[in-house]
Amino acid sequence: MRTALVIGTGLIGTSAALALAARGVAVHLADHDPEQARTAAALGAGIDKEPEGPVDLVVVAAPPAYVAAALADAMRRGLGRGYLDVASVKGGPRRELEALGLDAALLARYIGTHPMAGREKSGPLAASGDLFEGRPWVLTPTRETDTEVLNLALELVSFCRAVPVVMDADAHDRAVALVSHMPHLVSSLVAARLEHAEEAAVRLCGQGIRDVTRIAASDPRMWIDILSANPGPVADLLSEVAADLDETVRALRALQSSDDAERRAGTDGVGTMLRRGNAGQIRVPGKHGSAPQVYETVTVLINDQPGQLARIFADAGTAGVNIEDVRIEHATGQQAGLVQLTVEPQAAPVLTTALRERGWAIRQ
Amino acid sequence: MRTALVIGTGLIGTSAALALAARGVAVHLADHDPEQARTAAALGAGIDKEPEGPVDLVVVAAPPAYVAAALADAMRRGLGRGYLDVASVKGGPRRELEALGLDAALLARYIGTHPMAGREKSGPLAASGDLFEGRPWVLTPTRETDTEVLNLALELVSFCRAVPVVMDADAHDRAVALVSHMPHLVSSLVAARLEHAEEAAVRLCGQGIRDVTRIAASDPRMWIDILSANPGPVADLLSEVAADLDETVRALRALQSSDDAERRAGTDGVGTMLRRGNAGQIRVPGKHGSAPQVYETVTVLINDQPGQLARIFADAGTAGVNIEDVRIEHATGQQAGLVQLTVEPQAAPVLTTALRERGWAIRQ
Repeated sequence: MRTALVIGTGLIGTSAALALAARGVAVHLADHDPEQARTAAALGAGIDKEPEGPVDLVVVAAPPAYVAAALADAMRRGLGRGYLDVASVKGGPRRELEALGLDAALLARYIGTHPMAGREKSGPLAASGDLFEGRPWVLTPTRETDTEVLNLALELVSFCRAVPVVMDADAHDRAVALVSHMPHLVSSLVAARLEHAEEAAVRLCGQGIRDVTRIAASDPRMWIDILSANPGPVADLLSEVAADLDETVRALRALQSSDDAERRAGTDGVGTMLRRGNAGQIRVPGKHGSAPQVYETVTVLINDQPGQLARIFADAGTAGVNIEDVRIEHATGQQAGLVQLTVEPQAAPVLTTALRERGWAIRQ
Repeated sequence: MRTALVIGTGLIGTSAALALAARGVAVHLADHDPEQARTAAALGAGIDKEPEGPVDLVVVAAPPAYVAAALADAMRRGLGRGYLDVASVKGGPRRELEALGLDAALLARYIGTHPMAGREKSGPLAASGDLFEGRPWVLTPTRETDTEVLNLALELVSFCRAVPVVMDADAHDRAVALVSHMPHLVSSLVAARLEHAEEAAVRLCGQGIRDVTRIAASDPRMWIDILSANPGPVADLLSEVAADLDETVRALRALQSSDDAERRAGTDGVGTMLRRGNAGQIRVPGKHGSAPQVYETVTVLINDQPGQLARIFADAGTAGVNIEDVRIEHATGQQAGLVQLTVEPQAAPVLTTALRERGWAIRQ
């Protein structure tokens, strides 16, 4: 790929443009708001000028509601050899494109894609050429998609150092509903229970509810857009959750019964749900997207002086131990906390001994 | 307090005994399994012998199902001046005690308590005198509770360096249902959706679902015990979640409508739920149990070499910046990742500049 046109220079578009430009691709930038395109150009993402002839790849990174129109316009004007979009939902844009009456030869030049990357900030100033590094980037070719176009998309993904994943468009939409949209709404539902809770109860919050509700802090406007583009699969999944939820409530009510058999049924019902949760949780990919691996945790008590974390990590480094993950659990109302260091099982005793020798309080 | 008897030398009982012994209290240890009491004694938690006369405080740290019987037995034998239990649910033990026919004068010597601390491991070998450090420790006195007994309990909490929180027993049970038991089951329900999901979909999991489902990995047997002791309040809360869930599904279905007014109603419904989630999430206490504070995040790109985290923290320490929290996000299929450092807003530019100068790749 030698030339590209990025239409829509927000976070995703500008990040892709930066990655392409870094590989020597001549990138043209366009945006509904010329100021945005100018900013992206100033960041080194390309030049904010229309290309004179067709480019190799047109990347449409417009907001979801404008994607199909922007694609159709670019395709009719023949701006590129291949076209792709990066919207977070894939069935809708394709169907809209088809409804816009583009002919089959043009549609074969289009491939829907979705890089699984993002961040809280938006706009070109938040962009970065390494935004996609190591992230899955879904490609949804159809049987009609031209192989040259698929290869252009794969080249973009490779330049962005993302990991290509090929899926059917509707399977993609169900997958993101499962791993992202449904959990997001459920997190909001749990958090919503705290809205009018008594202060004394809220004080008892620990790390568990903190983790479950973290993503409920996201911007509602952005999520209304995301959910509006994928309501069907999300509603289907939430209905399945609702059915399990009803069963769980029934099991808990049975636990209140004075009848032994009913209580046993309640125990079984709750136990089944917890074990199904275990079975699902273990499938969540851990580090490096590899198969789940069992790690051990070494817990260190710290007070909250600057530099304590640095010393712990330095001491771990001296001992030759690689920290896989770290979690800081702050104590309530005190300048103290626990640092949980996740390491490979064989490294746990090494780390424990090394930290003890250097005077750290380890919770065995 | 000069003497104490700890009945039940598992994680919680032994940890409390260690904290008391460290303050010079003569601690006696008892357990259904004498081997456990012997282990606790060997760890320095006290002596595994019955006291010869009444102790100041009897701490019952038996499994929930045995708490009331163990308390009643100790109280009838007059083993102490004051009695408390540490079970995770508080309404049940009190009602069971009353049902066992203890007279009012004896009941006034009992106070139900619940230290909000724990860990994945159990048994005396997992115990630690600092297990409760900085954690809320709920006390549930009634109007009948003797002030001397309340003060003995407060002394224990203080020796354990926990933070006392006084609540009504039933309010406590509703509070732990809200901040712990309900979120736990909801986490399991989300995770359960992954059990039979396609591998391609599971590959798309990101940090959001990882956080939401983390606690679904817990031991089902332990959680069956916890939930069995508090089924009513948990079922009530799950029913409220179910009602919100049904409304959310209806709003999503409305978003699929071809009718503009209905779609607008769907947008409003989804938006309301997301905003209620925002309002609840912001109440979750952050660091130090203080009022929620706005922090900023500085994101550093690392490859996965040992020592990189140590260098980042050392560089932050040199710059005089205190890291409030840290989150490592590993990239899929690659030896690289992002380290998100949470700092106070005024420290963010300082840290960014300092790390840049030392050659770190910062994602702005």
